[in-house]
Formats: sequence, C-alpha cells, structure tokens
Amino acid sequence: MITQAEIKQIRSLREKKFRDEYGLFVVEGEKLVQEALSSGLRVVKLLRREEIGEAAMARISQLSTPSPVLAVVQRPEAAPAAPENGLCLALDGVRDPGNLGTIVRIADWFGVETVFASEDCVDLYNPKVIQSSMGSLFRVRYVPCDLVALCRRFRAAGRPVYGTFLDGRDLYREELCPDGLVVMGNEAAGIRPEVAAEVDARLLIPAFGRSGAESLNVAAATAVTLSEFRRR
Amino acid sequence: MITQAEIKQIRSLREKKFRDEYGLFVVEGEKLVQEALSSGLRVVKLLRREEIGEAAMARISQLSTPSPVLAVVQRPEAAPAAPENGLCLALDGVRDPGNLGTIVRIADWFGVETVFASEDCVDLYNPKVIQSSMGSLFRVRYVPCDLVALCRRFRAAGRPVYGTFLDGRDLYREELCPDGLVVMGNEAAGIRPEVAAEVDARLLIPAFGRSGAESLNVAAATAVTLSEFRRR
Repeated sequence: MITQAEIKQIRSLREKKFRDEYGLFVVEGEKLVQEALSSGLRVVKLLRREEIGEAAMARISQLSTPSPVLAVVQRPEAAPAAPENGLCLALDGVRDPGNLGTIVRIADWFGVETVFASEDCVDLYNPKVIQSSMGSLFRVRYVPCDLVALCRRFRAAGRPVYGTFLDGRDLYREELCPDGLVVMGNEAAGIRPEVAAEVDARLLIPAFGRSGAESLNVAAATAVTLSEFRRR
Repeated sequence: MITQAEIKQIRSLREKKFRDEYGLFVVEGEKLVQEALSSGLRVVKLLRREEIGEAAMARISQLSTPSPVLAVVQRPEAAPAAPENGLCLALDGVRDPGNLGTIVRIADWFGVETVFASEDCVDLYNPKVIQSSMGSLFRVRYVPCDLVALCRRFRAAGRPVYGTFLDGRDLYREELCPDGLVVMGNEAAGIRPEVAAEVDARLLIPAFGRSGAESLNVAAATAVTLSEFRRR
C-alpha cells in the first residue's frame, strides 16, 4: 500500500528543490534498484508495481514507461573535498543530464574514482542523469565544488591540471600524467576563462582530414581523453 | 504568411511515416539552417518567426523553445551502396536518437565519410538526431543497408571488418587497418549474431582497474574506437 501523501512526496522528487529539501532521490528499474541496494546507501522506500498497483506506479514513476520497481534512496553525505590520488575529472558547467550521466559512466569505465563538478552543473540526482549513468553514480564519488580553488589545490600538490580546448595541443603527442586532473567544459561555451587560467596543459583531440565538424560532444570528448590517459 | 495546411504538413514531419511519404525533414536554429542552405540539399521552405509570428512558429517547431528560424528540407536521394575508400562505420540497431546524432557528429570529427546503418536504426531525420548531430548529418553520407551483405562486400575486397565486444581483444594492442569497417552495436544487445559472424577482429575497449561499469555508452565507445584508428 502507498498513501496519497507518499505519492505526492515521491512525485515532488522530480524537482531538484525537493530532492535537496528531503535529501532523497528516486531510482527505477530492476538493475538500478539492485545497484542502489548494494551501494551502501540507505533505501528508504522500495515499491513494486505488483504491491502498489499499476495506477500508483504510473503516478510515482519518472519514466515514460514505468518500471516494475522503484526505490527512494537517501543521498550520501557530502564527500570530502580533498583531492584523491589518481586521475580525477572536473566538469565545468555541464548542463545536459544525458551528458552528465554518460560522463559518470565513462569515468567509472576508465577507473576515475572522483568527479568534481562546478555548482552550475546539472543535478546528479536528476532522473535523466540517473538513467544514463547506468548505475555508475553509485560507484563514482561526485563532488560539487569551486573549480578554481580545486585546480589550485592540485597544482599546489604538484599534480598537473589538463583541459580540452579547440586551440590546444595534440592530445596524442602530449605526456599525460596519471595523477592529474582533467577539466571538461560546458556544451556550448567550453571551460570558463577563470578555470582555463588554472589549466597547465591545454589539450586538443585533433579532427581528422578535412572534417567540417566544429567540436565533439563533451561526453565523447571525455571518453577519448580518458582513454588516452589510460591506454598502455 | 503561412497557411493552416502548411502548418499541418510541417507538424506531420515529426513522424517518420510522413517524413518518408513527403521526402522532407525539418531543421531549426540559425546554425543548422545555415548548414542546410549550404549543404546542396534543396530547402523547400524557410520560415522566420518575425514573418510568420510567434504563435505559428510555436505550432510548427519541434523544440521545447522554438527557434527563430525553421527550414523544411528535401531529403537526399538514396546514396550509392558501394563501400567508399577509407575507414567506414556501420551501426547495427542503434535506437536512441541522441546516440545516433552524436555518432554522426563523431564520425564527421574523425573524418569517416560514410556511416552505414541497419534498417532498424532510428531514423536519421528524427528531430533529436538532427539536433544532436550539430550539422554533421549534412556532411556525412548515411546509408541504410543490410549489414551482413555489407560486411561480406568489405571482406571480399580485402578490407577487414572490426566490431566491439565485451569479450574482444584489447583495442590498444591490435593492428587497425585505416581502410576497414567498424561495426558498433545496439545500446543493450550489442552486435546481433548474424553480423558478429562476419566480423574479422573482435575489439574491446579495456576497462581500467576494478571498474564496476558493465559497458560504455555506444557513442562513447564509437569515439574511443575511431580515435584509436586515427591517432598517430
């Protein structure tokens, strides 16, 4: 059974304002719910269609085709801001939920444990981010923070800060330090000037031949860049 | 001015059925419309908000925020099916419009002139494909075809057929022929068995460390794979 008040509260979690207020978010689908259950996060409600009925599930679901199972999950406490060891990623104003989820999945694949994000990135707990991350949001540490201060901390620790720019230097020919920070920029505007000023090495993924494309999608560029750091 | 009949016809182009019937598709936004105009395709209607009014533009637009300009474009004649020289890409059942558009943009960036696609891929002229391709659909030749027959033609011409698989061999250590065909599979199911049977070299993008991710998004995997073919 599910009460009208519960339905109303779960529906409110479509909005960032209420996710922030309650410290909760929603995951749907057998696989994602399973990952939530084994993630160590607290699952505060677990709702199955066969128990609450199809109509109630349709009301609380955030998907166009409601899944048979939905969990309401408590957000993790704020992660510590100190840079971790190993390669890290920082996102400067990534606004598209599909891009953010895909980037978190890419970071997970390439063994990047911490993703830093400027405060104006799309919310990690946006339903589309959760779906496109395919469960990787439960494995990657996501830290909203001030990127200028972050870059300075990395540089003070002797760890290079990389960024991708359309006027950067050929990624394939640069020495890439596996302990650095890679900054990726906004879909349209790229890395903002005050963050760019903190970048030690400006990288470019070279276009091939007489390509007319002006840029790569930020998730695709992240994948190519991390692959280049990780290839042996 | 725009008539009710014209509004109705343009609105109908949201559906593949009518795009096929009329041989037309819609592009929106200054940049995309400019690319359409310089693409060599025939632009049959060019509609500006300042001329037709905000209300009419809102009715014909396929975007949540209507752009100030919209063009109705005639689709190109069917491209010849013969394999081109140089690296080619083939998509086996890519269903997500954002993925297809992003892949076409990636192909453009990496100088892949021809993208073959199985008949069950999402329609190239789907509005979301057009938006996410960022104009690259005007520069890349897109050829729906039978992929089994295609792979056989490549192999008969001595050109290797590559595919990405979760049990493939380390992409970073394989010899990659710049004249080959790269097959990428469906978002969930990968490359279907009858196409996989025609693949000469099964490639894997290795995950790094103790990654828990099960796979990469197909557009991200395409970017990494094409980067690896093109890097020097």
